[in-house]
Amino acid sequence: MHGTELVRVDATGLDLPAAFAHARATGGAALRALSYAQRAALLQQVVAVLQSHRADYEAISVANSGTVKSDTAIDVDGAIYTLATYAKLGATLGDSLGGARVLRDGEPARLAKDALFQAQHLQVPTRGLALFINAFNFPAWGLWEKAAPALLSGVPVVVKPATATAWLTQRMVKDVVDAGVLPAGALSIVCGSSAGLLDALEPFDVLSFTGSAETAAVLRRHDAVAVRSVRVNIEADSLNSALLLPGEAPDGAAVELLVKEVAREMTVKSGQKCTAIRRVLVPEALYGPVAEALSARLARTTVGDPRHETVRMGALVSRAQLAAVREGLGLLRTQTELLHDGASHALVGADPAVACCVGPTLLGTREPDAAARVHDTEVFGPVATLVAYRDLPHALALAERGQGSLVASVYGSDPAALGAAAATLAASHGRVHVVSPDVAASHTGHGNVMPQSLHGGPGRAGGGEELGGLRALNFYHRRAAVQASTAVLDALG
Amino acid sequence: MHGTELVRVDATGLDLPAAFAHARATGGAALRALSYAQRAALLQQVVAVLQSHRADYEAISVANSGTVKSDTAIDVDGAIYTLATYAKLGATLGDSLGGARVLRDGEPARLAKDALFQAQHLQVPTRGLALFINAFNFPAWGLWEKAAPALLSGVPVVVKPATATAWLTQRMVKDVVDAGVLPAGALSIVCGSSAGLLDALEPFDVLSFTGSAETAAVLRRHDAVAVRSVRVNIEADSLNSALLLPGEAPDGAAVELLVKEVAREMTVKSGQKCTAIRRVLVPEALYGPVAEALSARLARTTVGDPRHETVRMGALVSRAQLAAVREGLGLLRTQTELLHDGASHALVGADPAVACCVGPTLLGTREPDAAARVHDTEVFGPVATLVAYRDLPHALALAERGQGSLVASVYGSDPAALGAAAATLAASHGRVHVVSPDVAASHTGHGNVMPQSLHGGPGRAGGGEELGGLRALNFYHRRAAVQASTAVLDALG
Repeated sequence: MHGTELVRVDATGLDLPAAFAHARATGGAALRALSYAQRAALLQQVVAVLQSHRADYEAISVANSGTVKSDTAIDVDGAIYTLATYAKLGATLGDSLGGARVLRDGEPARLAKDALFQAQHLQVPTRGLALFINAFNFPAWGLWEKAAPALLSGVPVVVKPATATAWLTQRMVKDVVDAGVLPAGALSIVCGSSAGLLDALEPFDVLSFTGSAETAAVLRRHDAVAVRSVRVNIEADSLNSALLLPGEAPDGAAVELLVKEVAREMTVKSGQKCTAIRRVLVPEALYGPVAEALSARLARTTVGDPRHETVRMGALVSRAQLAAVREGLGLLRTQTELLHDGASHALVGADPAVACCVGPTLLGTREPDAAARVHDTEVFGPVATLVAYRDLPHALALAERGQGSLVASVYGSDPAALGAAAATLAASHGRVHVVSPDVAASHTGHGNVMPQSLHGGPGRAGGGEELGGLRALNFYHRRAAVQASTAVLDALG
Repeated sequence: MHGTELVRVDATGLDLPAAFAHARATGGAALRALSYAQRAALLQQVVAVLQSHRADYEAISVANSGTVKSDTAIDVDGAIYTLATYAKLGATLGDSLGGARVLRDGEPARLAKDALFQAQHLQVPTRGLALFINAFNFPAWGLWEKAAPALLSGVPVVVKPATATAWLTQRMVKDVVDAGVLPAGALSIVCGSSAGLLDALEPFDVLSFTGSAETAAVLRRHDAVAVRSVRVNIEADSLNSALLLPGEAPDGAAVELLVKEVAREMTVKSGQKCTAIRRVLVPEALYGPVAEALSARLARTTVGDPRHETVRMGALVSRAQLAAVREGLGLLRTQTELLHDGASHALVGADPAVACCVGPTLLGTREPDAAARVHDTEVFGPVATLVAYRDLPHALALAERGQGSLVASVYGSDPAALGAAAATLAASHGRVHVVSPDVAASHTGHGNVMPQSLHGGPGRAGGGEELGGLRALNFYHRRAAVQASTAVLDALG
C-alpha cells in the first residue's frame, strides 16, 4: 500500500526431512492417540487463542494485504468461524463414535452365502502429514479451512504460506504454538522458499495446494505425486459465472439481486478471491439495462487507503499483482468493450505511483462465442465481463466454457427453472449458489466459502474438494475394506 | 504357451479425437438420458450376452493366457459376477431414486440462521468419457469391473487393453456392441498402441490405469492429468502380505489356513495377480514349520500345458514375463534363502524352450530388516518370500514397508487381536482380509477381488479406489454443493 518494508521471511538452512519426520512421528502419533471428540475440543481451544489476538491480526492484515477491515473480517473471522464449525461437527461426530479411533464407512456388506463373513469399510487417519502450500489472498482462512479438518482427522499440519502475506499466517501459528494447546509437532510453518518441501514428502503424506494452474502442474509432475502417489488436492484458476435466467424483468427483483451481488463480488478483497465472479451471463435483451445498473453501482465505490474512513475498496496485494491485473485487462480489452472504467476512480489517500490500487472495471461482450479470452483469462482483481447470451442452452454452454469452475451463481424467481439450471451446472462447478427473492436477505453470498459446502471445482479449477462439512475428513483418511467374521468386525475399535 | 501366433492387433490410422467426441456426445448423452434403474437393466443385458458366449471366452483365455480353466473362471466368471452385482446394486439404487438423474449426497445443511437457505450436495455424472488402460492379466474382469460402475453412472467407456491379451477383451466388446444392448458410443475399444490416447482427453474425462508404477508416473505427468486435471485412478505395484499373528500353535488351524491360502495365492493364475501374496510374515518360532508345510504343499503343484488334465498351474503370459520373473527372482535370491525351488518341477506337456512355464518358488529370510528387496521388488509370478518377525509391532512395521499395498491377510484365532491388527493395517492397505477358523469355509480368499469391497491401495499401490459397491460410482460423478432455498432444492431432479 505504502511501499514500506513490513517484515522479512527466510527458509534457508531448514532441515525439512527432520522437521517432517518430527511432525509425523511426534505430532501424528499424539493426535491419533486422541479421539475425534478430544481433537474437536482442541480446535475449540485454537479458536479461543485466535480470538484473543484478533486485534493484532486485523492490524497485520490491513498493513500487509492493503484491504479494508470488512475484507480482513472475511479472512480472519472466516478462519475462526470455520474452525468453530469443525469443532462443533467434530464434537457431534465424537458423540456418535463413543471414543472410537477409526470411522466406519457404511454398513457391513455380505460377501458369502453365509452371513458370518462380511466386508466393513473403514476410514482410518493417514499416517503421514498434511502439507499446505497456500495462496496470498487468504493468509488466515487459507490455513485454518485446511488445518481444521486435518487436525480433527488426527493428521499433523505443515503450512507454507505465500511469501507476500506470510506474516499473518506465521503470527497465528506462533500464537497457537506458544499457547501450547496442540501436541508438539501437530502444527508447523515454513516461510519463504518452497524448495525441498515436496522432496521430503512420503507416500502417506497428503498435499493441498491453492494457487495458479501453472504451479499446480509442476507439483503434479513432481516425484512425490507422480511416483510416490502422495494424495494431492488442487484449487487453481477459475472463471466463475453469475447467470441471470431468462424471463426476468429488467426492473425485477432478480436483476436487482444480480447487480448487487456482482458489484459486491468484484470489489470485496479488491476482486482477489478465487471464487469471485468473472463472467456475468445475461439475456441479450437485458445486456444494456444490467450494464447501466452495474456501472452506476460500481461508480460509487471509493478506492484507496483502507485506513481511510470513506474507502470501500483497498489495494491489491503487491505491485506485481497490479502489473498482472493490468496485463490481464489488456488481454480482455482486445475482445470486449469497456462498460465501466476503473481508471475513472480517483484514489483516496493513496499515491498512484506507489499504491497497488485499481478501480473496479466492467467489460462486456455481445459476441461471447468469439471472445475466447473471456472464458479462459482469469484477471485476479476487481474486473468482470458482462456477457449476452441467446437462450438458456447457450448460457449453460458459456458457463461450461470455463472448463470447470469453483462456483456459479444463478438468479431468478422460478424455483423449477433454478433447480434445473443448478443441477446442470453442478456437473462443471464445485458449488452452485442460487439467489431467488425469497432468500434475498438470508443467502450467504456467491463468493463466501461456507464450511458446510464443498469448495473446489473440476477441470481448470484443479479438481479438488475441500470443506463440505465432514466430507473434508475424507482427504485425510485412508479408506479400506476389512473382510472378516462378525466377531472380528465387532473388534475393529 | 506353444509359441504360435494367435491374432494381430493394430491401432494405426484411428482418429481418436473424433472417436472420443462421439463417445462423449452420442454415448454419454444417451446414457445420461436413462435413469440409474434403466442403466442397471442394461448391465443385466450385458451379463446375458457374455454368458451366451462363455465357451468362446474360455477357449480364447486358455489359448492366449496359457492358464488353467479355473484361472479363466476367475477372469471371465469374475467379470460376469461383478457386472451382475452392479446390475443388482443399480436396481436397488434405482428403486430408491424413483427415476432421478442425479444422486443426492447427504442431507441438506443449514447455512443461515434462517432455515430457508441450505446446502444440498449432489453427485452428478461427469460429462466426459472414461478411458481404461488395462493390464494383461485380467482381459475380461479388468474391463468389466471398471465398466460396470462407469456405465451405471451414465459415463461412456473406452478401453485400451494390454496388447498381449487384447484378444479376449476385443471379442467381448464386439459381442456386446453387436448385440446392440448398449447405446451407440457407450462402449469402445482401442487395441494396439496407446499413442495419442491421453492427448485426446478433456477436463471432464476420467482415466483409470492398471499396470506398472513406471507407466503410472508417465500418465500422471501427461498434460491431460497435470494441466487439464483429468481425474485419474491408478492401481500399480503391490507387495501384499499374509500375516500369521503371534501365539498360534504350529499344528493349529490358523497355520493350516495360512499355508493353504499362501499356496493357493502363489499358484492361481501362475501368481500373475496384483493381489497375490508376495510376503508371508510369521513369528520366528514358526518360520521352520511353515517353510516345511508350505514347501510340501507347493511340491504337489503340477505345472505345464493348461489343457492337460493333471496340470494345476499353467504358463506365464509371455516369454517377456518369463524373463521378468527370472530377473526378479535373481534379485530376491541375493537377499533370501531358497526354501522351495520352482525349477524342481518337471513340466507336463510343455517344452521348456518354448513354453513360458515356471514352477512355484518359495524364498525366505530370518533377517527381513536388512532384506530391502523383499519389500520393494514385486515378482509377477508364482513367487513369495517367507519372513520371520520378532513381535507384532515388528510384523506390522514390515507389512508397512510395502509403502502401501492392495491387500494384507491376517490369520489367527483371537477376534480381538485380529480386529486390532486389521484396524492398524487398514491405514496402509486398501483391503484387509481376516481368516479365522470360524470362516475357514466361507471366506472369499486373500486375492479374490469382491465387488462389494474396495480394490486399490495407497502409496506404491497407486492410491486408487475401485469397486467397494456403490462407492465405485464416486469416481464417475462430480460432487457439487447447491446452495439454495428449500423450494429450489426440492426441484433439483
